[in-house]
Formats: sequence, C-alpha cells, structure tokens
Amino acid sequence: MINIGIVGYGNLARGVECAIRQNPDMALAAVFTRRDPATVKILTPNVPVLSLDETAAWKDRIDVMILCGGSATDLPKMTPVIARDFNVIDSFDTHAAIPAHFAAVDAAAAESGHIAFISVGWDPGLFSVNRLYASAILPNGKDYTFWGKGVSQGHSDAVRRIPGVLDCRQYTIPVPEAMDRVRAGENPELTTREKHTRYCYVVAEDGADKAAIEHAIKTMPNYFSDYDTTVEFITMEEMRRDHAGLPHGGSVIRSGVTGWNGESRQTIEYKLTLDSNPQFTACVLVACARAAMRMKARGVAGCQTIFDVAPADLSPMSREDMLAHML
Amino acid sequence: MINIGIVGYGNLARGVECAIRQNPDMALAAVFTRRDPATVKILTPNVPVLSLDETAAWKDRIDVMILCGGSATDLPKMTPVIARDFNVIDSFDTHAAIPAHFAAVDAAAAESGHIAFISVGWDPGLFSVNRLYASAILPNGKDYTFWGKGVSQGHSDAVRRIPGVLDCRQYTIPVPEAMDRVRAGENPELTTREKHTRYCYVVAEDGADKAAIEHAIKTMPNYFSDYDTTVEFITMEEMRRDHAGLPHGGSVIRSGVTGWNGESRQTIEYKLTLDSNPQFTACVLVACARAAMRMKARGVAGCQTIFDVAPADLSPMSREDMLAHML
Repeated sequence: MINIGIVGYGNLARGVECAIRQNPDMALAAVFTRRDPATVKILTPNVPVLSLDETAAWKDRIDVMILCGGSATDLPKMTPVIARDFNVIDSFDTHAAIPAHFAAVDAAAAESGHIAFISVGWDPGLFSVNRLYASAILPNGKDYTFWGKGVSQGHSDAVRRIPGVLDCRQYTIPVPEAMDRVRAGENPELTTREKHTRYCYVVAEDGADKAAIEHAIKTMPNYFSDYDTTVEFITMEEMRRDHAGLPHGGSVIRSGVTGWNGESRQTIEYKLTLDSNPQFTACVLVACARAAMRMKARGVAGCQTIFDVAPADLSPMSREDMLAHML
Repeated sequence: MINIGIVGYGNLARGVECAIRQNPDMALAAVFTRRDPATVKILTPNVPVLSLDETAAWKDRIDVMILCGGSATDLPKMTPVIARDFNVIDSFDTHAAIPAHFAAVDAAAAESGHIAFISVGWDPGLFSVNRLYASAILPNGKDYTFWGKGVSQGHSDAVRRIPGVLDCRQYTIPVPEAMDRVRAGENPELTTREKHTRYCYVVAEDGADKAAIEHAIKTMPNYFSDYDTTVEFITMEEMRRDHAGLPHGGSVIRSGVTGWNGESRQTIEYKLTLDSNPQFTACVLVACARAAMRMKARGVAGCQTIFDVAPADLSPMSREDMLAHML
C-alpha cells in the first residue's frame, strides 16, 4: 500500500483524492493546508486535514507527498523544502522555468536521498513524453502541439482582473484547418494566430462599459493580442449553468519522412479529450507516485521527470500480465 | 557511435538501413544473410554483406544486432541464439507467443550478460506502451485498438495460397462508426465484425474460377470468416501501379471516467498514419538500439521490452535540451 499525502487543497487536490480512490494499492494518509484546517472539508472520510507546519511528524507515515500548489509562487518554494523530508511529486507547469526548478529540487532531493518528480501532468507530462517518443522515432520531422478546446485558467484569471468584469471563462480552440494541414503531413509554418483562437464568456457588472472591456481583452499583450479573440457577454446564471466544468485536451502531432530518400510520410498523433483537466492531471500524478516508490526501492534519488520513468513502473500490473495481455 | 548489425535482408531490414542513415550517432557495420551474400545488394555503400555463419567474428565490432527475420519460424530460434554473442533487438509480433519467446530470450541473454529487446515496433511496441500508459492513468476505463487502413501481409499471404490466385493485397479497414462511438466515450461492446472490414485486391490466373476464389476467401476461418470481406479482381498491372506500398496505421483509444462518482469522461487516443509499415517499424527498432546501449552501460542485462525503457533513453537529446525544449 502506498500512503499519499496531499499538500494544498483545490481542484487538483480533489482530483488526487478521487484518483487515489480508483487505485486499490494507494491510500490517502493526510491533507496539509496553509488555511485553517478546520475550514477545509475533504471528500475522503476519516482522513485528517492538518496545518502545513505539521508535516514533519508524518515523515514515517507518508510514502509520497503530492504537491497541489500553483506554479507561479507556491511550487518553486514548496517543492525543494518538502523534498528534504519526503518523496514528492509536483505538476510545475511554467515551461520556461523548468530547468531552474529542476536544479533547485534536485539539490534538495539528492541531499536528503528522496526521489522528486516535477512537471507531471499532461502538458508538461504526457504531451512532453509523446513529443520525446515521436522525435526519437522520426528524427526527420516536425512537432506541433494544439491545445483545446478547453478552459485556460490563466487567461480566465487575466480577464477577471479587468475593471467591470465579475467572471470569465476563456476557451482555447485549435484552428481546424491548421490541424488538418498538420495531420496531412504538410509540415506548415504556422503563426500563433493561425494555430489557435480564443473565446471569452464574460459576466460584466451592471452598467459596465462592455465595449471598453472587449477592447481591453482583445489588446491585452501576451494573453490575447496575438490571437483572434471573440468576446461574448453572458449572465451569471448562464456562467454557472453552462461553464461549471474545466474541460481541456489537445493533440501532439509529429509528421516526418522515412526511407532512403525520405519518400514515405509517417504521422504520429497523441490526442486527449478531457471533461476535467484537474482530475486527469491528478490521475497522472498518482500513477507517477507508484513509479516513484518502485524507482526509490531500486535506489534512485534526486529530481526526475516523466522522461525518466519506464512505463512498466506506472502500472499496477504484474510483468507476466503485461507480457501476456498488454504487449 | 553505435555500430549496428542487421540479420536478414527484406523490407524491414531495408527500413533499418534507412533509419540508421537518419541518426548521426549510428552506423551500419554489416548485414548477415542466410542467402548467398553475393546475391544480396544493400543500399548502404561500403558495408559488407556476410553469411549468417560469420557473425562470431564480429562480436567486438557490433554493438547491437537488429534481427529482421519473421515471427513464425525465424525469430523464435534466432533471437535466443544470437543473444548469446550480441545485444539484440527483434520485432517478434505473434502476441500469443510473447511470454514463451520472452522466457527463451531472457535465459540466453541473462546467461551471456547481453541485453535483448523483443517485440519492438508499433504493435507490439508503441501501441502496447500507449495501452500501458493509458490503463495506468485511467484505471476505470476500457481499451480499444483499431488497425488500418493498411496492408496486412499475413492476410495477403493467406489469399495467395488459394489455387488460381497470382497475387493479393489485403487491406484492413476500421469501421468508422465503431471508432466514432469509442471516441465519444460510449465504451461499446464490439464484435470482431463490428470493428474492422477487410478488402482484398486479387489478381487471378487466366481462366480461374473467380466465384470459387471469392468463396474460398470469404469463408476462410480465422482470417476472413468473422469479417465482412470485399473481394475485387484487378489486373497485375493495376496491382503494380496502385498497390506497391505497404501503408498501415491505426489507433489505440482508452476512454475512462474520473471523479468521486465517475462523473467525468476522459479519452486518450494514440494514432499512427503510416505510408510505410516496415520503415516505421524500423525507426522504432533503431531508437531502441540507442536505449539498449544506454541501459547496458548501466548494467542492465537480460530480456527487455518497450515497457522497460525510460523514454529519455530513446532520444539523442541531452538532458538539458530535453528539460528546456521538450518537457
């Protein structure tokens, strides 16, 4: 039995709880929070919610800590600190900052002899590992990643910070014509605008200047100015009724040529269609906890990524069953 | 530089030659054949073609032998024998016989201290590894594998053995409606007939009884009787003009539920669209040769499968580049 601790308690942590429930070789040991533990209600019965200050007392009762904080400010500090006392897994997803995060976590985990996985999930995570497989197999080719249709929480938050906006749900949508060209093996050069469009459902305050809000969204640098963006104003009731979920997904596609003169076109696509982004991410984190325990038992320590996991270590199946039924 | 030897010289071996050419860290050292070496012309200049009896003299000059024999009779004998002297990779694809082949190869490789990979390719191979990832991540779900549209060489051969048949190309075609239901997350129970159809292009001898040939095909047990099969008679010229390639592909789809009460549907699809089945299989074999050398250097010996390979070992990229650009 693998005893899991959860640090932080939001959508991702609730997904981890649900995923643990689906895996008979795992148990939730405790949830740690920076909030007042008495105010945090979790799904699993008879599991304590504790203050983040109390982790040290659980060193012998938790095999892996799954860190469910945010990538902007929580995880860069939290993962190296907790890796001093525990094996850890995080879903750090600021792509540009991964090398620095890796170095910080590796230093802490290598010194304490723990194993630490960073950037586990689907992107980074399963999309990354599919980019790696595909590029190793088709060296003469080109990668494309399309996201959506799905809710971008970062973009939704950015719109919510505009004065007069009460709520927003931003959907990232891949451009079908661009995907068709990539799937057909054209290997096109595509601009940001040609790959994805953005669609914002916005609830505005009564009397707010909707034209000004729309202009502020469409011209926002980094987030929206490089995209064709549609803004639709809806009521709070419509928001609650139609946009409560956090669906997402996307495709990693690599198209390349093989043969003595590159005469054959080969295309690999990995596609996710997710009703719940945080629940799916949580499933990857939990499978990785299993791999972490197996690798640790073989003497592996320090910072690891999904690139370092032999797939067999993710699965509860025996080698015999894998060879007979899965290979 | 990884020095590769090839045993056997057919379509798959030619694909391996082409793949080695695309990987700057690899070189072809020699090709070994059971035929008269003087009759075998290979693509790569200045590489010897030798008799299969001469492998022993190459023990120090070849890092990995890629075995390109057939699964029916060649590989069950060949892989354990060659694993006594070399690290080996094969593409053994008789699914039901994999456990026995694994045991035989493992005994030979473990005793000699070599590393041996069996059943590398796309199915078994990349499809298998995607079934494994998906089942580990979505334990409450169901797997589907669809093949095609593509040429099945086994089925084409079976038709060629019917009296009066000069040539045949058999295409396996997934049923679009079945794939749509699976992609939509319905998790249907599908019979063999509901998943795939078969289409045979046949060249008959002059004066052959075409009705008898068609009947013999459609009622052939195991190969055709469980499928809706279409037979179309064409000329030898049409066969050469329209059916010279060996395209294939397919999809592995797993659809499962997550959430406390299974309220969210999550679907993972891995899809291959291949102009050349043997060239693509060869690319996987060659990437696996790189992983074999890295694992061997860390002391791994005995029989392995794609399940045992950490994806990082397949790639020529440095860890720094992977973290910065691929994760």
